[in-house]
Amino acid sequence: VLTPAENTRVTRVGPGTPGGALFRRYWQPACLSSELPERDGGPLRLRLLGEDLIAFRDSAGKVGLVDAFCPHRRAPLFFGRNEECGLRCVYHGWKFDRDGNCVDMPSEPAGTTLQQKVKLLAYPTVERGGVVWTYMGPRDAMPEPPDYEWLRAPPEKQYVSKTFENCNWLQGLEGGLDTAHSSFAHNNHLGEKTVLRQKDKSPHIDVERTDYGYFYISTRDMGDEGKYIRVYHYVMPAQQMRANTMGWFGGKNQVPRLDGHIWVPIDDTTTHVYNWMCAYDDTIEVSEAWRHRRENEMGRGKDDVIPGTFRLKRNQSNDYLIDRQMQKTQNFTGIVGINTQDFALQEGMGPICDRSKEFLGTSDKAIVAMRRLLLEALDMVQNGGKPRGVDPVSYRSVRPHDRIVPPGHDWKTIFDKELTAKW
Amino acid sequence: VLTPAENTRVTRVGPGTPGGALFRRYWQPACLSSELPERDGGPLRLRLLGEDLIAFRDSAGKVGLVDAFCPHRRAPLFFGRNEECGLRCVYHGWKFDRDGNCVDMPSEPAGTTLQQKVKLLAYPTVERGGVVWTYMGPRDAMPEPPDYEWLRAPPEKQYVSKTFENCNWLQGLEGGLDTAHSSFAHNNHLGEKTVLRQKDKSPHIDVERTDYGYFYISTRDMGDEGKYIRVYHYVMPAQQMRANTMGWFGGKNQVPRLDGHIWVPIDDTTTHVYNWMCAYDDTIEVSEAWRHRRENEMGRGKDDVIPGTFRLKRNQSNDYLIDRQMQKTQNFTGIVGINTQDFALQEGMGPICDRSKEFLGTSDKAIVAMRRLLLEALDMVQNGGKPRGVDPVSYRSVRPHDRIVPPGHDWKTIFDKELTAKW
Amino acid sequence: VLTPAENTRVTRVGPGTPGGALFRRYWQPACLSSELPERDGGPLRLRLLGEDLIAFRDSAGKVGLVDAFCPHRRAPLFFGRNEECGLRCVYHGWKFDRDGNCVDMPSEPAGTTLQQKVKLLAYPTVERGGVVWTYMGPRDAMPEPPDYEWLRAPPEKQYVSKTFENCNWLQGLEGGLDTAHSSFAHNNHLGEKTVLRQKDKSPHIDVERTDYGYFYISTRDMGDEGKYIRVYHYVMPAQQMRANTMGWFGGKNQVPRLDGHIWVPIDDTTTHVYNWMCAYDDTIEVSEAWRHRRENEMGRGKDDVIPGTFRLKRNQSNDYLIDRQMQKTQNFTGIVGINTQDFALQEGMGPICDRSKEFLGTSDKAIVAMRRLLLEALDMVQNGGKPRGVDPVSYRSVRPHDRIVPPGHDWKTIFDKELTAKW
Repeated sequence: VLTPAENTRVTRVGPGTPGGALFRRYWQPACLSSELPERDGGPLRLRLLGEDLIAFRDSAGKVGLVDAFCPHRRAPLFFGRNEECGLRCVYHGWKFDRDGNCVDMPSEPAGTTLQQKVKLLAYPTVERGGVVWTYMGPRDAMPEPPDYEWLRAPPEKQYVSKTFENCNWLQGLEGGLDTAHSSFAHNNHLGEKTVLRQKDKSPHIDVERTDYGYFYISTRDMGDEGKYIRVYHYVMPAQQMRANTMGWFGGKNQVPRLDGHIWVPIDDTTTHVYNWMCAYDDTIEVSEAWRHRRENEMGRGKDDVIPGTFRLKRNQSNDYLIDRQMQKTQNFTGIVGINTQDFALQEGMGPICDRSKEFLGTSDKAIVAMRRLLLEALDMVQNGGKPRGVDPVSYRSVRPHDRIVPPGHDWKTIFDKELTAKW
Repeated sequence: VLTPAENTRVTRVGPGTPGGALFRRYWQPACLSSELPERDGGPLRLRLLGEDLIAFRDSAGKVGLVDAFCPHRRAPLFFGRNEECGLRCVYHGWKFDRDGNCVDMPSEPAGTTLQQKVKLLAYPTVERGGVVWTYMGPRDAMPEPPDYEWLRAPPEKQYVSKTFENCNWLQGLEGGLDTAHSSFAHNNHLGEKTVLRQKDKSPHIDVERTDYGYFYISTRDMGDEGKYIRVYHYVMPAQQMRANTMGWFGGKNQVPRLDGHIWVPIDDTTTHVYNWMCAYDDTIEVSEAWRHRRENEMGRGKDDVIPGTFRLKRNQSNDYLIDRQMQKTQNFTGIVGINTQDFALQEGMGPICDRSKEFLGTSDKAIVAMRRLLLEALDMVQNGGKPRGVDPVSYRSVRPHDRIVPPGHDWKTIFDKELTAKW
Repeated sequence: VLTPAENTRVTRVGPGTPGGALFRRYWQPACLSSELPERDGGPLRLRLLGEDLIAFRDSAGKVGLVDAFCPHRRAPLFFGRNEECGLRCVYHGWKFDRDGNCVDMPSEPAGTTLQQKVKLLAYPTVERGGVVWTYMGPRDAMPEPPDYEWLRAPPEKQYVSKTFENCNWLQGLEGGLDTAHSSFAHNNHLGEKTVLRQKDKSPHIDVERTDYGYFYISTRDMGDEGKYIRVYHYVMPAQQMRANTMGWFGGKNQVPRLDGHIWVPIDDTTTHVYNWMCAYDDTIEVSEAWRHRRENEMGRGKDDVIPGTFRLKRNQSNDYLIDRQMQKTQNFTGIVGINTQDFALQEGMGPICDRSKEFLGTSDKAIVAMRRLLLEALDMVQNGGKPRGVDPVSYRSVRPHDRIVPPGHDWKTIFDKELTAKW
């Protein structure tokens, strides 16, 4: 439960807000590298943390990320010419490089001093793991580039996709840190009792704070088999890391993998979700066919997305194609696709969930802990401090894990080496 | 004429407003019974007086009407499972019965005390006359269920339909209490002088207050034939009752009937109109074919409505398919359908009509009287009193009537027994 | 650069605003005469300076321009009957003539005194040059009807078209007074160096204030050929006049013409642009085919417009059909149509451009001068004075001109007689 004031404080991320100041202390995904396929190609409109921006891949292959409007008379740079290492406004021909310097000003007399004075707002970018990352905060506080383990995996062992979500980012993050709901919302085989998360639907949760945020241990009772333990990481401000290695240990023909999402606020009421995956280690094969199968299972495969967009075909406008008959006989929600189920619940809360009306239980411990970290970080940034998870050293060696721990064993011993990055 | 402040006060009905408090003292139509056709069927989204709600028919056939969001973490209950006499949220499996009690909480450890504490907002419902009625006010002030005469007529002598209107409810109610406009807006046969309401276009109006609101007597001069008298009832807060018995007395092949509308605010700028009809008495046959013909005449028949909705095909987006040639030669408006004509005028005033700019005449007496009653009732409720029309005893025996009163006769004598319910 | 407060002050034109008071001191185009083709035809919805109005051509052929809502109970007059020199509301039959007098009130008893008291808001109109003009300001300050030179040209030597622009009017006016951008945004033949405005892309600008606003002289260096001089007029509050006589003097098969736009605020964020043209003098032939060719070149020809509207098919919703390949090889913007290019830039600035973030150069002199005149006029009107350009005598004899002035000649001598109206 948050007060209305706390809820406002923690959810808003536009320029000038406390939440905006917090998010701007971290490198954020700006877009997929594949959205800027060619040098000197067409500019790309982006909206990040409530700011309208333009991305372009310049003649040298570097990505520029700049204000959507020309500093001269505020003409839209989307229509600009991406040429010879810069973006040229088509109103009066002023040209800027990816650092925001004005490199040509043909509408003014030769020798004008205006050219040196004019700057285009430009944010630094790096490309890693198929993602263009940007840093939108104060330059003197800029951390090292992002270095999550999954970014170090070789391309053929890793992938990232992106989906549009029509609500505030925190609703997504809360779903991502909530292990309990998978026993319900993602129960896709009604009546099948062998599924691990069906055997115990009220997991016990322990949270341990770290320099990057926290990890939590979810424990489900498997009876004679022992305990099913999952360790999730919450990497601030809005990344979840979870493991799905059970297929491997359980001997089924699956790819043991690490999974996660980053929720990137487009603005206060819309979000881009980056869905990453990397294989357990380099002995694991990740085929193209497998990738497709898994994205389809999530409900965000090629055929699930409106072409030319990152929006699901099953969305709010059609009630996610819920099938009430399917809901009675096959799966818990009547909705196809694991992430589609998540979106139905998260978007269905409205643009920004009213957390003052909640009743929280013990299964919500991880949610509560995350909100507390965020509220503390908001204060910390406002007081000039550095929040958790900014420096890559805080998170670079961590990875999530999950496994059944047989009776009489301590999970910490068994998980020991598994929680350390292998890439 | 209302001041801007009075206009705001009288039109707004959301939670916490004076108008909201007034409307919440009465049973209101929530939906048609036919919108919830089967037990354990899919839940139905409703919006009533600015509140987002979910209706469901449970395993026992009773209708639940509850908050649209789960009290746990505010997930949308629309996607819930309607099963075994309750609605189960698909986020974490919490289940609530139609009274709002939490009857299962599987994501929490067995024996949790949280289950008793959590309540889902639930409003009581009753079904009468093909309508699901609800009471959204303070429980200790809840009146007896609605008992309008038309609700007591047997199903085969009665029917109700529902239409969506894209403006504030008061614009609808004002049109419904305005007898004068039928000589103009509903003049569907230009030049035909035999129509009663064409013979005298400026009816004289007398209003008499009652315990349920008022009735008014509209008098039109028919020359040698006498006076055409209509008695309308205004049953607070937003029901009109009128008679159309002239077909009967006039000998034409029509069903003499009582007619009316209830305007139910979805929110401040949209409305559901419930259109009811019942036959004069049990000697009158109401065939299915006749019902269809009449709904068509109103412009809200099966072919007039966008399938799967309660919205007219002739609507604001297409200027009600006005035909200017038809307007010159056939009917006064160029618009087909009596209620379509009403909607064109009422929706055309904008979302909420600015009544501070009016010039009222003697034909507006009934409108003025209704506004005065509403303003008084707003004060009364704010001061802890009970407004008119809450108790069924105030209205249960009334019915409207219309008839030509020959010269030398007193309408009161002729109307005497006709204003008393026959069902 | 304007402060945020100045920007708000200069851009807003609704009732009660300083800008609204300024615009209401001038006759404004209300619609094209062709939008009201017949007497007693269907009424036309208009929105002007944020006011919702209805225009109708009465039985005498005169145009009425009145409040969109009936003064009785605010019913929409759009559905009214246009008959016998007046507009009759279809709610209760009240009828008003084009001056706003109530000429019939059939819903009230004969002899009602209400009829004399009720007035419908009505604005005076005149028709000139294919345009219906209206004056929405205080009657005692009403100037003589508009008398721009192009209005005096005979119909076969003149024409006007109209386009819808989805942004504040000032963005349009600024584009219209900006000669520099034509070297870039309207460079439709990449690499062709013989085009006059390609030879010198940083024109020198001199502004001279007048009683109607200002004219400015733009000077481009043509090397051995001399100077290319253009004289533009800014006629307050929002008209541009420019010449395109070069085709004539240059010997190409073109119609030497005077051109211009008037930007008429629909409200603060949408605009109608009136595009006028008249021939240089009566020796010049203006064929229908030529008109079409020119409108097509502008991007606002018959096939460029969504039928039944004044909206371009190439618009914001489809990024003006920008073709990035065309942009690389053929024209500067990749967008077809001169005015389409303007719209892409002006609408792309957003509903109201934020001028506090600009960096202006010497090429923006005319823009700066226009803004200063507007800000001064706002103060003047607020202090009870009469702004420039209200009286036709201030502008009736002016016309724009452009020409190459050979070395050693003074432009003033050569332009002398050309800046005086020939119609």
